Amino acid sequence: MRTSRRGAVDPFIVMDVMEAARQAEADGRHIIHMEVGQPGTAAPEGARKALTEAMADDAMGYTVALGLPALRARIAQLYGEWYNVDLDPSRVIVTPGSSGAFLLAFSALFDAGERVAIGAPGYPSYRQILKALSLQPLDVQTAPENRLQPVPDDLRSLDFEGLMVASPANPTGTMLDSAAMGSLIDLCREKDAAFISDEIYHGIEYEAKAVTALELTDECYVINSFSKYFSMTGWRVGWMVVPDDHVRKIERLAQNMFICASHPSQVAALAAMDCTEELEANMVVYRANRAMMAEGLPKAGFSEFAPPDGAFYFYVDVSAFTQDSRAFAREILDEAGVAVTPGMDFDPVRGHQTLRFSYARSTADIEEGLARLKMFMAARGFV
Amino acid sequence: MRTSRRGAVDPFIVMDVMEAARQAEADGRHIIHMEVGQPGTAAPEGARKALTEAMADDAMGYTVALGLPALRARIAQLYGEWYNVDLDPSRVIVTPGSSGAFLLAFSALFDAGERVAIGAPGYPSYRQILKALSLQPLDVQTAPENRLQPVPDDLRSLDFEGLMVASPANPTGTMLDSAAMGSLIDLCREKDAAFISDEIYHGIEYEAKAVTALELTDECYVINSFSKYFSMTGWRVGWMVVPDDHVRKIERLAQNMFICASHPSQVAALAAMDCTEELEANMVVYRANRAMMAEGLPKAGFSEFAPPDGAFYFYVDVSAFTQDSRAFAREILDEAGVAVTPGMDFDPVRGHQTLRFSYARSTADIEEGLARLKMFMAARGFV
Repeated sequence: MRTSRRGAVDPFIVMDVMEAARQAEADGRHIIHMEVGQPGTAAPEGARKALTEAMADDAMGYTVALGLPALRARIAQLYGEWYNVDLDPSRVIVTPGSSGAFLLAFSALFDAGERVAIGAPGYPSYRQILKALSLQPLDVQTAPENRLQPVPDDLRSLDFEGLMVASPANPTGTMLDSAAMGSLIDLCREKDAAFISDEIYHGIEYEAKAVTALELTDECYVINSFSKYFSMTGWRVGWMVVPDDHVRKIERLAQNMFICASHPSQVAALAAMDCTEELEANMVVYRANRAMMAEGLPKAGFSEFAPPDGAFYFYVDVSAFTQDSRAFAREILDEAGVAVTPGMDFDPVRGHQTLRFSYARSTADIEEGLARLKMFMAARGFV
Repeated sequence: MRTSRRGAVDPFIVMDVMEAARQAEADGRHIIHMEVGQPGTAAPEGARKALTEAMADDAMGYTVALGLPALRARIAQLYGEWYNVDLDPSRVIVTPGSSGAFLLAFSALFDAGERVAIGAPGYPSYRQILKALSLQPLDVQTAPENRLQPVPDDLRSLDFEGLMVASPANPTGTMLDSAAMGSLIDLCREKDAAFISDEIYHGIEYEAKAVTALELTDECYVINSFSKYFSMTGWRVGWMVVPDDHVRKIERLAQNMFICASHPSQVAALAAMDCTEELEANMVVYRANRAMMAEGLPKAGFSEFAPPDGAFYFYVDVSAFTQDSRAFAREILDEAGVAVTPGMDFDPVRGHQTLRFSYARSTADIEEGLARLKMFMAARGFV
């Protein structure tokens, strides 16, 4: 049967790691999961309770395409609470996860063949979704001295119709401050390129507050989600903020492409937004884990990283130990019982020299994982 | 800010009807809803109960991209129960509604610029999703004598890379029997075109069982959903069956485009599949409504339709009364208090002469709606 070229996207290498970890566990081994990109915690209890109650007397049919009005209003309110930004709820679009927001944004903004610049390393699905939509991802190699975030000088000589940034970023956890983001927004304006800001890790930040692009301009697309800070990955609900005059277009696209985000998930998400106590308790764990990682990784020989401002990852240069991060990750899994992610998913060019360590799970797991990593590295004479 | 051409999809006219109906209700009027394309019933009680229980002890993180293994297995089992088809669960892909399945199928099968034939009248989103993906929808005007389903003679002289059929169809409710579907599959084989069968209304059928394309060939994509028979529209969970050698490609696309369908919705869907008693009680209502409509619509002057084999719609030729179905629907809403859907969403060419009447709501509503329609038509001298 026939098949398309654009649909032939790359596999996730992390999936092989996860399958190998699953196999090891099936064989009776105890594995520490530092490969996962999601919280180990459930949705807040208040969110689950709200859904159970709503299911008793609401048929949960389709919502309108832009999302439950109360949820859109509550999200707009969040921008006041978090950033002191006054946001009109009519610009908020509830989406099936940030994944759905990417699909909507890319089809609303770009025609087949157009180019979208993305920083490498970066979230692998940007590249693959762009490809599946017949767009051209333009990998921009970011510099360690810029903490692996793109800067205008990386981009000025390139031709592109859009720029996608992430702050805090996956896999590095580094952020763009107001000046850094502003300079990229200015460059996009000069080039008449769309500026898209992936803010999915907002709320999970440690030293400074993350900056939303909406503090700087209304002429951008901002993408966020209930997956990370709100601990609702599997619920598939996110949101997007777009310029006023793009709302109707996005609404039509959303009606056709998704009809709506899951109605039960929207109900739970709305309640989750007021579960501050439970969510901040998760943050206490992340904060403790991050401190433990910042101290423990260098002791295990993994010291080449930019300290992460947010999210729950350390992205480490392991070029002193290997030129094949995939094989190295496999050895760490087999010998130390710790699952980690090789960098090739995030950076096709330099990822053979990097590993991503996640600290999204329990503090006990992090402690054990760091001890195992140190033993593994010591056995090789690397520390 | 820049914007794309392909994202400029058409609005749904039915949305204007729904907004006008909502406004009328806000003004204190009582409206009968014959415009809606979804059951008025909730997800089966067993499904909601299963979710409440699962939420107590499952963190509901991402599922694997292809869906919960137990759900894929249960769906495969359904093909044995409903059609006596022996289906390998590995070919079943759980999707975010049939909407998600369309996005996956179209990007896996077609490259930008390729043509996909669809029958007119048909589900409007086929056309819009194709356009948003830089594909060319090829409207095929179907004939009343073929009960508004495409036949090979409609297609033989055309060039296309794919054919999408729906049986039972929206808006007509008519089905393709085994011979009719087989002849279209044969034609696609000759033309090396992909055959995609939208089977979302399966289970809601009245005289004969609907035929799945999988009874006839493995070389096809079959799309279905929990929205209609399983009464779970707002939950956004559906499925797709693809040829063996397409599974890996779809898996990679799904990982990137969606990560997974909503985990809570998958849990509920799995339980819904065993709520036969409640689901068949819904069918008793649809069956009664359909009989009432088949008798009552002609008495109200609406007699030009192909009797629907399935789904919950009658699609009526109203050319004897109007050349502007949109204005006519508006008059029916304003004067009779019945919301109906003008045909232009389904058939841009002939839809100005057609209306879709849905009977998905309660029998009492159908009875009242038919009485109002009869009075409206009598007042105009049409009956």
